[in-house]
Amino acid sequence: MATAITDIGTLLTCDPSLGEGPGGVLRDAAVVIDGGRVAWVGSTAAVPAADDAYSARGRALLPGFVDSHAHLVFAGDRTAEFQARMSGRRYSAGGIRTTVAATREATDEALEANVARFVGEALRQGTTTIETKSGYGLTVPDEARALRIAARHTPEVTYLGAHVVAPEYADDPDGYVELVTGPMLDACAPHARWVDAFCERGAFDADQARAVLTAGAARGLVPRVHANQLGPGPGVRLAVELGAASADHCTHLSGADVDALAGGDTVATLLPGVEFSTRSPYPDARRLLDAGVTVALASDCNPGSSFTSSMPFCVALAVREMGMTPDEAVVAATRGGALALRRPDVGRIAPGSRADLVLLDAPSHVHLAYRPGVPLVAAVWRGGVVVHPAGE
Amino acid sequence: MATAITDIGTLLTCDPSLGEGPGGVLRDAAVVIDGGRVAWVGSTAAVPAADDAYSARGRALLPGFVDSHAHLVFAGDRTAEFQARMSGRRYSAGGIRTTVAATREATDEALEANVARFVGEALRQGTTTIETKSGYGLTVPDEARALRIAARHTPEVTYLGAHVVAPEYADDPDGYVELVTGPMLDACAPHARWVDAFCERGAFDADQARAVLTAGAARGLVPRVHANQLGPGPGVRLAVELGAASADHCTHLSGADVDALAGGDTVATLLPGVEFSTRSPYPDARRLLDAGVTVALASDCNPGSSFTSSMPFCVALAVREMGMTPDEAVVAATRGGALALRRPDVGRIAPGSRADLVLLDAPSHVHLAYRPGVPLVAAVWRGGVVVHPAGE
Ligand SMILES: [Zn+2]
Ligand SMILES: [Zn+2]
Repeated sequence: MATAITDIGTLLTCDPSLGEGPGGVLRDAAVVIDGGRVAWVGSTAAVPAADDAYSARGRALLPGFVDSHAHLVFAGDRTAEFQARMSGRRYSAGGIRTTVAATREATDEALEANVARFVGEALRQGTTTIETKSGYGLTVPDEARALRIAARHTPEVTYLGAHVVAPEYADDPDGYVELVTGPMLDACAPHARWVDAFCERGAFDADQARAVLTAGAARGLVPRVHANQLGPGPGVRLAVELGAASADHCTHLSGADVDALAGGDTVATLLPGVEFSTRSPYPDARRLLDAGVTVALASDCNPGSSFTSSMPFCVALAVREMGMTPDEAVVAATRGGALALRRPDVGRIAPGSRADLVLLDAPSHVHLAYRPGVPLVAAVWRGGVVVHPAGE
Repeated sequence: MATAITDIGTLLTCDPSLGEGPGGVLRDAAVVIDGGRVAWVGSTAAVPAADDAYSARGRALLPGFVDSHAHLVFAGDRTAEFQARMSGRRYSAGGIRTTVAATREATDEALEANVARFVGEALRQGTTTIETKSGYGLTVPDEARALRIAARHTPEVTYLGAHVVAPEYADDPDGYVELVTGPMLDACAPHARWVDAFCERGAFDADQARAVLTAGAARGLVPRVHANQLGPGPGVRLAVELGAASADHCTHLSGADVDALAGGDTVATLLPGVEFSTRSPYPDARRLLDAGVTVALASDCNPGSSFTSSMPFCVALAVREMGMTPDEAVVAATRGGALALRRPDVGRIAPGSRADLVLLDAPSHVHLAYRPGVPLVAAVWRGGVVVHPAGE
């Protein structure tokens, strides 16, 4: 059954061949969806007949957000740590261990309820595709459990045994890498699509991260890397060297890092919620865009460094703090995330793409930056079905 | 009929005599509301019998936000100006004239629909008291019309004929001040509670602003002042001199300004949405708090410099950017706003106060800063009645 969505004030297709600018923008537009896919895109005046009609009444339609970086399988929160940090303490990776302890103690049911809650919360804010990682278990059974639970809620599941060195291996980090590349990988690979490593001082160095990522790749997992968050380092160049889908954070980049990204296929995924919530300097998206690098925006939703699930908030920050135009930021939060997840079916509104759509209570996607903090998401379709508001 | 709200994980009373710290925080708390007022506050274990019961299930309850500074009577938006500014142009007061032209052309119905829409949008984000101003009419009938419309939606109505000099008086600003203090005041005073002036280079100087505010005060309107937004100036000291309820913006303050605020009864109202959306340096809330000044947070919701209606967003910015603790920021967004509007009945949860309450999908009000951008408002009571979600 075909449904025509008409009278779209601003349609952001994220396909430059369909409209104006990097966002492929059309005005007074219409979209026909059929069988969970986009069947037709054009002007309201030219819309073909359909079984059902829905008027957008001049409001903006855009692809569902693709949040390509989140950590949703955890228990507990870190309110006290946040309050202390806002009184002057810097963020350090050490806090991850607090969440590891709480996550190991949690029941499967408690962990799954958390994942469902955050996926639902993100959906109501327009996120129709979300990645999530393990990394708060750090034992063979706890990592495998996290991935099994995650896989019930999203296909974009990432094995992050190499988040930090497990406390049991504090004196033997290489022993932990052997675990991560051996028995833990055996237990985890069947449940994941991606492999990730936190390549940073205090976590894993380039050789350790390379060992984890190549071992994962040998088992069919595609690499992505936590890179250059807290300071300069080898993470970004390692990501490009290994053909990773994405290098995430990219806050501290050398000229060589930018050149490497511009010369490869690795997406630079920026996570401004982290810089907001850790009171750190933001990455320079303008520099990356001007160098021709593909940029994605993602939430990094996690209880330590960025407890936001709001892609609209990330868009507003990217415009305020990172030199992106509103169009570039919204494209990075949709099409960019889709490229970072190698998902050609999402992140755009074009014939054949999945009908994952967001309607805003605003005439344009620019309002996501122009009206920061305001919940503007009026309706969400996933696979052609209205999933928010519930019952519509 | 009395209703008991029990199992409140964190109750922020905003009354230090009722609990811990500046927020008067209670854990495992309960509130009884009756006849639109708070009748009782204490622990769940000690809650008296009531006709009806509502379990907060461990979530946080706080007073409804009091947004003491907004400009909701306008037509049009300024998306293009926003986009240009984000590409490098600075904000200037001149843009106000764009909105003046659109507002004058709009029908009463269109203006009223806008006010209703923004008041509703704010309510769904937890704002139960909101101030709004004229200032986009700048003729006698247009200013009076704005106030009549505003007064149908909130009792906190401010006459801001002295927003900028009307375009018709570009060559005769003193003539415009005569209009604002004469026939315009005659037409507007019956519909307003407050009088305001934009005391800033490019708008009105100290003598002009003093003339407007004292003329308003002579007609029973209480002064509040737009002061020290774009640079240093006389606005804050004028506000204190006149016993204004509030000096708003306070972005550029001298030591003498801070001393004046600390020595008077004028609240310093900070509007961080403006600095976010104009990419300007933030005011230093810490300095004001340390000097003993009462600080309020407000949205300044307007289509030019801050098109947000989100008090949670302002709280998150205040913590990230202005040196406030989460408790201080939430108190400033509730009790602070109430003091800036001289409304002892709102902005706290204490026996006798209005039952204007916000329930969060979070265990603590700290999550308003810890989870930036996430719509956490689960339910809103106004005058003891659940007004959001609708139909509950
Ligand atoms: Zn991460
Ligand atoms: Zn204002």
